[in-house]
Amino acid sequence: MSRITSIETVDVRFPTSLELDGSDAMNPDPDYSAAYVIVRTDASDRLSGHASAFTIGRGNEVEVAAIRSVADLLVDRDVDSLLGDMGATWRLLVHDSQLRWLGPEKGIMHMAIGAVVNALWDLRAKRAGLPLWQLLSRMSPEELVSLVDFRYLTDAITPADALAILRTAEPGRARREAELVDAGYPAYTTTPGWLGYSDEKLARLCREAVADGFGQIKLKVGASLDDDIRRLRIARASVGDGFPIAIDANQRWDVPEAIEWIRALAEFDVHWVEEPTSPDDVLGHAAIARAIAPIPVATGEHAHNRVMFKQLLQARAIRVMQIDAARVAGVNENVANLLLAAKFGVPVCPHAGGVGLCEAVQHLSMFDYVAVSGTWQDRVIEYVDHLHEHFTTPVVIERGRYRAPLAPGAGTEMLPESIAAHAWTGRHELAEVAVA
Amino acid sequence: MSRITSIETVDVRFPTSLELDGSDAMNPDPDYSAAYVIVRTDASDRLSGHASAFTIGRGNEVEVAAIRSVADLLVDRDVDSLLGDMGATWRLLVHDSQLRWLGPEKGIMHMAIGAVVNALWDLRAKRAGLPLWQLLSRMSPEELVSLVDFRYLTDAITPADALAILRTAEPGRARREAELVDAGYPAYTTTPGWLGYSDEKLARLCREAVADGFGQIKLKVGASLDDDIRRLRIARASVGDGFPIAIDANQRWDVPEAIEWIRALAEFDVHWVEEPTSPDDVLGHAAIARAIAPIPVATGEHAHNRVMFKQLLQARAIRVMQIDAARVAGVNENVANLLLAAKFGVPVCPHAGGVGLCEAVQHLSMFDYVAVSGTWQDRVIEYVDHLHEHFTTPVVIERGRYRAPLAPGAGTEMLPESIAAHAWTGRHELAEVAVA
Repeated sequence: MSRITSIETVDVRFPTSLELDGSDAMNPDPDYSAAYVIVRTDASDRLSGHASAFTIGRGNEVEVAAIRSVADLLVDRDVDSLLGDMGATWRLLVHDSQLRWLGPEKGIMHMAIGAVVNALWDLRAKRAGLPLWQLLSRMSPEELVSLVDFRYLTDAITPADALAILRTAEPGRARREAELVDAGYPAYTTTPGWLGYSDEKLARLCREAVADGFGQIKLKVGASLDDDIRRLRIARASVGDGFPIAIDANQRWDVPEAIEWIRALAEFDVHWVEEPTSPDDVLGHAAIARAIAPIPVATGEHAHNRVMFKQLLQARAIRVMQIDAARVAGVNENVANLLLAAKFGVPVCPHAGGVGLCEAVQHLSMFDYVAVSGTWQDRVIEYVDHLHEHFTTPVVIERGRYRAPLAPGAGTEMLPESIAAHAWTGRHELAEVAVA
Repeated sequence: MSRITSIETVDVRFPTSLELDGSDAMNPDPDYSAAYVIVRTDASDRLSGHASAFTIGRGNEVEVAAIRSVADLLVDRDVDSLLGDMGATWRLLVHDSQLRWLGPEKGIMHMAIGAVVNALWDLRAKRAGLPLWQLLSRMSPEELVSLVDFRYLTDAITPADALAILRTAEPGRARREAELVDAGYPAYTTTPGWLGYSDEKLARLCREAVADGFGQIKLKVGASLDDDIRRLRIARASVGDGFPIAIDANQRWDVPEAIEWIRALAEFDVHWVEEPTSPDDVLGHAAIARAIAPIPVATGEHAHNRVMFKQLLQARAIRVMQIDAARVAGVNENVANLLLAAKFGVPVCPHAGGVGLCEAVQHLSMFDYVAVSGTWQDRVIEYVDHLHEHFTTPVVIERGRYRAPLAPGAGTEMLPESIAAHAWTGRHELAEVAVA
């Protein structure tokens, strides 16, 4: 028997706002940050589990405090039991009778639980000597179902439904695993499309995206309609007719405004419209989807739990579902989300970028391909070329596809020297950097 | 000009779990807690603003950390400007470009903003020498509209709609204010209904509630159907036929389970069913409402913002709307919620209890009566007899009604000796109390 001896946290921040990387209509000046967590045990393997919650700067210290609060529930517990029944471990954290009030199942506390859950999965995958996507893809349908908390889901998907989906995909698992290792998983790039970039930089990055083999790009919109029209015209001219261009409003609009604005951009052959309004507004997304059809609505990076995804699917509000590795309560809840998407026949195209989101979420899409949906039809993982150099196993993009990672773990471990260099130690350090 | 010199926080916890006060199907052992905030200025009036976010124990330190993060945005600012345009102040906090990621507009960060906003309102009311409900009730319709952020609401209510509602109520303001001072506002009591109480205690407290003049009681349900039937039978026998008994499941059920369970309790003439399922599940609440009609569905204590209330109303999912003073981003957002309810013609019956929630929310119902809905038809404020003795201006209940408070402020200031006695200083203090 081995036990968890400590759960360490670090407040890690990168001053990305200085370069306007990541600037959009709602997030003009993000400082990509990680509330980083390390789970240590007294096992002889000396392995540790690493993961983080992603934030964009101010308040990262609150996310760290939340992880510490969650960690209190786990220190000194038997790590073999925790890792051996991750479904029970998830329920232990998410349904804690007092912490639950702080969500429930949303916001800072839910993201903190997600970070801790993901660190445990990182540890379990390292112990198994497998990348997370392979670990998940080789579990039995029964064990996968046991990971999911079906509370609040049974009007849309039951355990029996989930088992049927997983069993249907079972025969092709080995073949698809080999295909992934051989070919990688399709990606699209958001790198050209940040609002803070000049028109020249936009055009150059669009051309580079096509040359690099990406099958789709995405542009940020929503700050100014005139600017959006000008930028979409530049992008369309740069990538050529027929090349998929998605747009992303980052929650900027009210429902009537969204409908009007999107219609004004329809002439540019929009591949999908992402986050047109409040992420909480299921009925609003549904109204927009009806009004702008056949342009698909996409959302999910701020959908705070499986109940939100359930409703977006039930209401036919989305035709592209965008899971995020660090917004919900970790791998378990994203298994639920993938099963919901499969039940409703909606493709999952994950949100990524930030710091470490690409590294984490690729495992979920690859697991989906092998063991859940069994297809990559209409599916792409977002890719943004930021901050990968800080990870022990950074993503590798080849000809517009994510290469399947083969290193053991969940991909969420940062280099110790990066953590040390970017550990945030004071309240006003970033402001001082900006001045200097 | 005066400025905010400091914003202090205190982690205040009461070991209520020792008595099973507040026990329900999802919260078996709450330790009612306050992430308490004090806004101090250098003004010559020496007045300070007090309020808190309410939690149920573990994690209260995270809520305190969130308040500190919000406070950083306000310290050193001109307090007259902040108080003079509370609509702008609200936007400054809620739309902070980096903190927003931690919600958006939900969970720990949104509750922290609510605490700070409410402390500013407490200060403004003290400066005006008025209780908050009178301060709000005497504002012009135009100023009240300026408090509300209509972002994400305009498909349901526009500023013009809100202005029309407020102007319609304007002529009767003085009369209704006098009525409130004379008669108080109707209350109901949840004191009899906690799951942890014995049958004998339940029966005794039900009889006392009727004798004390309350017009309604509420029972917790959802842990065991047999127990619920037995307890409802006892309660019905104790209060007599025709006396309103509401039930509250505290999010315990899935949608199909809720429908089945509520139908099994319908014979006891249920006045409303509260929180039948996940607070995020708008479509689920709507499905339950359709299936159990004519029994009304009530919810809102965990509805995390105005966008959730908008949808619950749009979907006809609730016939009783339960605002909470400390869950959303403070007074401003609850003004939005009251306007939404008025637009849809749904009565607001606030959630209260905990620590300080009765003291805070009575002001909102009284403002609603004077200046928004203009009626108390079908409206009652929850009352629970816990922890009022810790406040400088505790609620006063007379013959089943809240007496209208006349002391200046928002009612949210705790006694310094109570704060000192219950300030939480270590991680395991409550556990030690429980052992002692």
